[in-house]
Amino acid sequence: MKQIRIGVIGYGYWGPNLVRNFNDDSRADVAYVCDPQAAMLEKHRTRYKSVKFTSDLDELLLDKELDAVAIATPVDTHYSLAKAALEAGKHVLIEKPLCRTSSQGQELVNIAAERKLVLMVDHTFIYHGPIRLIKKLILQADLGEILFFNSVRVNLGNFQRDVNVLWDLGAHDLAIMDYLIGKRPREVFAIGSAHTDSQLADIAYLTMKFERDLIAHVNASWLSPVKVRQIVIGGTRRMIVFDDNSQVEKVKIYDKGIENMNLNLPTTASQIYSSRIQYRHGDMVAPVYDVTEALRVAVRHFLDCVTTGETPITDGAAGVRVVRMLEQADVSLASGKVTSYAAGNDDV
Amino acid sequence: MKQIRIGVIGYGYWGPNLVRNFNDDSRADVAYVCDPQAAMLEKHRTRYKSVKFTSDLDELLLDKELDAVAIATPVDTHYSLAKAALEAGKHVLIEKPLCRTSSQGQELVNIAAERKLVLMVDHTFIYHGPIRLIKKLILQADLGEILFFNSVRVNLGNFQRDVNVLWDLGAHDLAIMDYLIGKRPREVFAIGSAHTDSQLADIAYLTMKFERDLIAHVNASWLSPVKVRQIVIGGTRRMIVFDDNSQVEKVKIYDKGIENMNLNLPTTASQIYSSRIQYRHGDMVAPVYDVTEALRVAVRHFLDCVTTGETPITDGAAGVRVVRMLEQADVSLASGKVTSYAAGNDDV
Amino acid sequence: MKQIRIGVIGYGYWGPNLVRNFNDDSRADVAYVCDPQAAMLEKHRTRYKSVKFTSDLDELLLDKELDAVAIATPVDTHYSLAKAALEAGKHVLIEKPLCRTSSQGQELVNIAAERKLVLMVDHTFIYHGPIRLIKKLILQADLGEILFFNSVRVNLGNFQRDVNVLWDLGAHDLAIMDYLIGKRPREVFAIGSAHTDSQLADIAYLTMKFERDLIAHVNASWLSPVKVRQIVIGGTRRMIVFDDNSQVEKVKIYDKGIENMNLNLPTTASQIYSSRIQYRHGDMVAPVYDVTEALRVAVRHFLDCVTTGETPITDGAAGVRVVRMLEQADVSLASGKVTSYAAGNDDV
Amino acid sequence: MKQIRIGVIGYGYWGPNLVRNFNDDSRADVAYVCDPQAAMLEKHRTRYKSVKFTSDLDELLLDKELDAVAIATPVDTHYSLAKAALEAGKHVLIEKPLCRTSSQGQELVNIAAERKLVLMVDHTFIYHGPIRLIKKLILQADLGEILFFNSVRVNLGNFQRDVNVLWDLGAHDLAIMDYLIGKRPREVFAIGSAHTDSQLADIAYLTMKFERDLIAHVNASWLSPVKVRQIVIGGTRRMIVFDDNSQVEKVKIYDKGIENMNLNLPTTASQIYSSRIQYRHGDMVAPVYDVTEALRVAVRHFLDCVTTGETPITDGAAGVRVVRMLEQADVSLASGKVTSYAAGNDDV
Repeated sequence: MKQIRIGVIGYGYWGPNLVRNFNDDSRADVAYVCDPQAAMLEKHRTRYKSVKFTSDLDELLLDKELDAVAIATPVDTHYSLAKAALEAGKHVLIEKPLCRTSSQGQELVNIAAERKLVLMVDHTFIYHGPIRLIKKLILQADLGEILFFNSVRVNLGNFQRDVNVLWDLGAHDLAIMDYLIGKRPREVFAIGSAHTDSQLADIAYLTMKFERDLIAHVNASWLSPVKVRQIVIGGTRRMIVFDDNSQVEKVKIYDKGIENMNLNLPTTASQIYSSRIQYRHGDMVAPVYDVTEALRVAVRHFLDCVTTGETPITDGAAGVRVVRMLEQADVSLASGKVTSYAAGNDDV
Repeated sequence: MKQIRIGVIGYGYWGPNLVRNFNDDSRADVAYVCDPQAAMLEKHRTRYKSVKFTSDLDELLLDKELDAVAIATPVDTHYSLAKAALEAGKHVLIEKPLCRTSSQGQELVNIAAERKLVLMVDHTFIYHGPIRLIKKLILQADLGEILFFNSVRVNLGNFQRDVNVLWDLGAHDLAIMDYLIGKRPREVFAIGSAHTDSQLADIAYLTMKFERDLIAHVNASWLSPVKVRQIVIGGTRRMIVFDDNSQVEKVKIYDKGIENMNLNLPTTASQIYSSRIQYRHGDMVAPVYDVTEALRVAVRHFLDCVTTGETPITDGAAGVRVVRMLEQADVSLASGKVTSYAAGNDDV
Repeated sequence: MKQIRIGVIGYGYWGPNLVRNFNDDSRADVAYVCDPQAAMLEKHRTRYKSVKFTSDLDELLLDKELDAVAIATPVDTHYSLAKAALEAGKHVLIEKPLCRTSSQGQELVNIAAERKLVLMVDHTFIYHGPIRLIKKLILQADLGEILFFNSVRVNLGNFQRDVNVLWDLGAHDLAIMDYLIGKRPREVFAIGSAHTDSQLADIAYLTMKFERDLIAHVNASWLSPVKVRQIVIGGTRRMIVFDDNSQVEKVKIYDKGIENMNLNLPTTASQIYSSRIQYRHGDMVAPVYDVTEALRVAVRHFLDCVTTGETPITDGAAGVRVVRMLEQADVSLASGKVTSYAAGNDDV
Repeated sequence: MKQIRIGVIGYGYWGPNLVRNFNDDSRADVAYVCDPQAAMLEKHRTRYKSVKFTSDLDELLLDKELDAVAIATPVDTHYSLAKAALEAGKHVLIEKPLCRTSSQGQELVNIAAERKLVLMVDHTFIYHGPIRLIKKLILQADLGEILFFNSVRVNLGNFQRDVNVLWDLGAHDLAIMDYLIGKRPREVFAIGSAHTDSQLADIAYLTMKFERDLIAHVNASWLSPVKVRQIVIGGTRRMIVFDDNSQVEKVKIYDKGIENMNLNLPTTASQIYSSRIQYRHGDMVAPVYDVTEALRVAVRHFLDCVTTGETPITDGAAGVRVVRMLEQADVSLASGKVTSYAAGNDDV
């Protein structure tokens, strides 16, 4: 079987992980690593002796034998790089977030569709065993109706200089939320604070409201002494805690809740004394899940899609939805008001 | 020395704790427990054989030998009970929040001042060893300038039927924040969701912005599978995590931060690659603190104030400040907009 | 119904807990607290106004209306106090360990039997919700055949001056092991170290071997910077971790193991490479359990036994078995050799 | 500078880590990987395209340009492989434990000394940042006199077929203990249980006593539902907990102890009541430490020693000391008695 020839564009923080995973998959052949920083490339040249390291993007785009590119560069460069790659006929795997505006994103989606190329956004967590397990539990209705989604993603650094903390850390949570909840928010509110001259929020709180009182909240920060990666999802039947910092038992399913959510609550003082809501405190189960590295699964899925023409789970449309929520968050951050989520064509 | 005679009004969840702590302090004599629920009193009658259990409030108010009352009833009854007690010449220790409106609260403050009576709000956490230690660290400038205050107080239940989750759980965080930060917010924003017919928010997110980019956030919920009691405070020099669920080492001081908060950040893509912010990762210290039960310390302080005429740390004015923030939060919850914090006379 | 009149002998660390729990049970009437230390009693006199505090033991023994005594004094006094109480016709609840020698213990068992009095040892953990749950799981054969029992009970202090750390902390583990495993060890080995002039081991490791390769180990120490209360029990089908320091989820059941315990293992180097044992990694379940205070359950059970004549779960015979293992441990500690467990009449 | 040419012998569990770390060090050139299992090698051939994979050991030994070998094969093969390599003039880095008997080990030490070759045992933990930090604290006398060393190293699997669990997991603890304590035990006691037909202990408890009441204990098991990697070291001044499973703060230093270890303890019952030992409960500090991968540091140190002729920290003599303790443990396991540690020439 012919190998799929890949070029990795951007060799900063994430690029080496892409190279390692493509290199470990026998279906792929990493032909190029491309980065403007020649020095950074030099020290890695010895590790992968058969890869061509270059600072010349055209070398990749003009190589007719190159099937696909994986883009792991700063967000502001995503749109033009992805567009150039698609127009050169390459399949594209691109880091989150897809790009800076939903209209740019939609344009990329359209180009890929016209040319029948795969456009996959590397929403890596969607390929993480624990998240896939939670999706399965939700599909099986194990949680009942979902009441809330609460995510905390905080640590010290790494301050970005081109995007605020929601575009950096929060994008992960929005991708996960979009995947697990499968609904669009009605309202988006964001508030945050910037402690550096960049004026980019380094602490931000993003709240989204959905129909039927479902509320979602993301706490993202580059200014926390401790690293937290936790998502809590509450349903009428069960609640889930996903703690990605835990070495084992990352998913805990709580058989907990209140017996009757539609409470007819007494209001006089004496009634307040006389009745009691019943809470259900059942067992907790920490199920086993696939522990394969998420990026390895993502890379496999990308190679599958390239081979079969299948639409990726995290396709361009998913990328656009995440970018649209980030745009709305920016509007709210600037205005101090709740904003309505304006769905585009992708949401029909 | 003559003992201070106390009547405890309200014998639901918190009342028994007040009785136990006053009973254990040799300076106090618990003369009465008063509650409309005769049945509840009956089963406790044997435990404290010298206490008079009654459902008749006037019995307390008309007893000339009764020095003080401790009020632990539903919030809606606070104002009228406290007013009646003060007017009957009794010193008052009252559960948080002080009452339902800041104007009611201010009225209670005025009455107490006129009559030279102690009005102390039971903001219990202010008397908790870990919180007092953190206050001391802040006063010593160990944290540098404070950048953020982030609190999570969530658990399953207990749904209240008269107030939303911010008035119930969030009031603790506002009292702690008011004590530790010592500043008034400029802006208040709250958003939440109600999942029962009561239409009272059971999940709420409250964000406050102060001058100089200080941001505070409170996540309060009655709908969480796990109980969390955690406050993170970040300063330019050090950061603190207070985890009240931890059995030991509730306070952790992190010698962490970023070297230069006023970053002149490069903005071109090539610059983004070439420079790096420096993060400081120093030791963590978990200091010892006083482990005395907070309510015991609060009760002692109340007895001190009654004896000496000293103003309590958590006086009526502190109670009014907390109520005013809760009022602003309610306005924001209803309007979906950031609201300005309107300081009253207490904030001069 | 006539209340059962109780005298509590010994009012040091544990005595107040006994008084509180008997006082909270409507079937009991705490008539006396007896302790040689008059001063210690004085400060508690006000808390329980209807209890008679005395330093005169005979006052209790000669009171014909006194039904039972609870003994919470140093171990060396247990035998003579219990004997005197039984001979005065009182039912006896006595702190662990029952006494200093198994022959003394057997004598107490015999006296109680002759006089048809209840003799119950306060092996408190046997009445602890998590332990009762684990017993139930074992009885249901959920664990399969038990392979090992491993307990760690360490903390800083409290150094005892009359017994070594096994008689103090280890006695709990032996009581739990005796209850859960229900078998007698064949061999006992103990090794330890004493770091004070008392020459009493403050760190000790106790290992017991049972038939069919079941091994039990107790690590007991007064010299640990952290407090640990953990028991791990492994069976062929499931394994359990009981962590009493955890605030919630004290019991975790692991569906883990190795597929075939009777492995026919290859021994040549090439075979070592070529085969692989299969491990089973299934879900973990943290079940709900009764959270009632263990001593409250123990006190209720004692009152039940006094009322009905029923034999306590932790009867004198259970107390003797624990003392016998402690005796064997002392022999091993002194000799540096494994000792055989010599079962007495109680083990028929 | 000429690179040091390395051959890695054994490509099972640990071999790939050796290859990766040597490959990442610019001073080294991994010339060969040698393993009898041709199939296993095949799948890795593509990862390191410049390495020669072979099943023929002689190819390495006869290559005059090969400077050193790293041996990561089953223990039983260590002695003959290391001897052959040393006799072929190669420097040797060898997995722990050095070999099966201390006399074999001493022979290897002698051969290396005669030929002026480096013989380094890969006691990896000695190169682990946290352990090096603890060594520094001990050298600075921060702990005072050491009272105990307690290690727990348990998990589910991997059952070895050639050695018992002490030779596998326990060897790490003995290497760490030897490095940190720097003394030889006077007495060794081991007890364990084998639950498979291999008759090799899969659960074992090893206790060693040193002069001045220092006691060390190792709990090693392949049959635990949870993975634990914890060492507690107690001194008269401070105590340390090293938890290698913690993602951060692996080292915690407790300023705790008892005020006077040479207690003149009262012995009469009334004295037991009247006096109290004082415990010191000070702050806990979790210091920063070097987070470089331990094996990377070990590999660097080996390359340093090969280059300079310096004696490795974990030289052959250290390897012999660990093997000698394991031998004594086996004697004790078989006899059920405490055995005396017989020091050899290396301990003069």
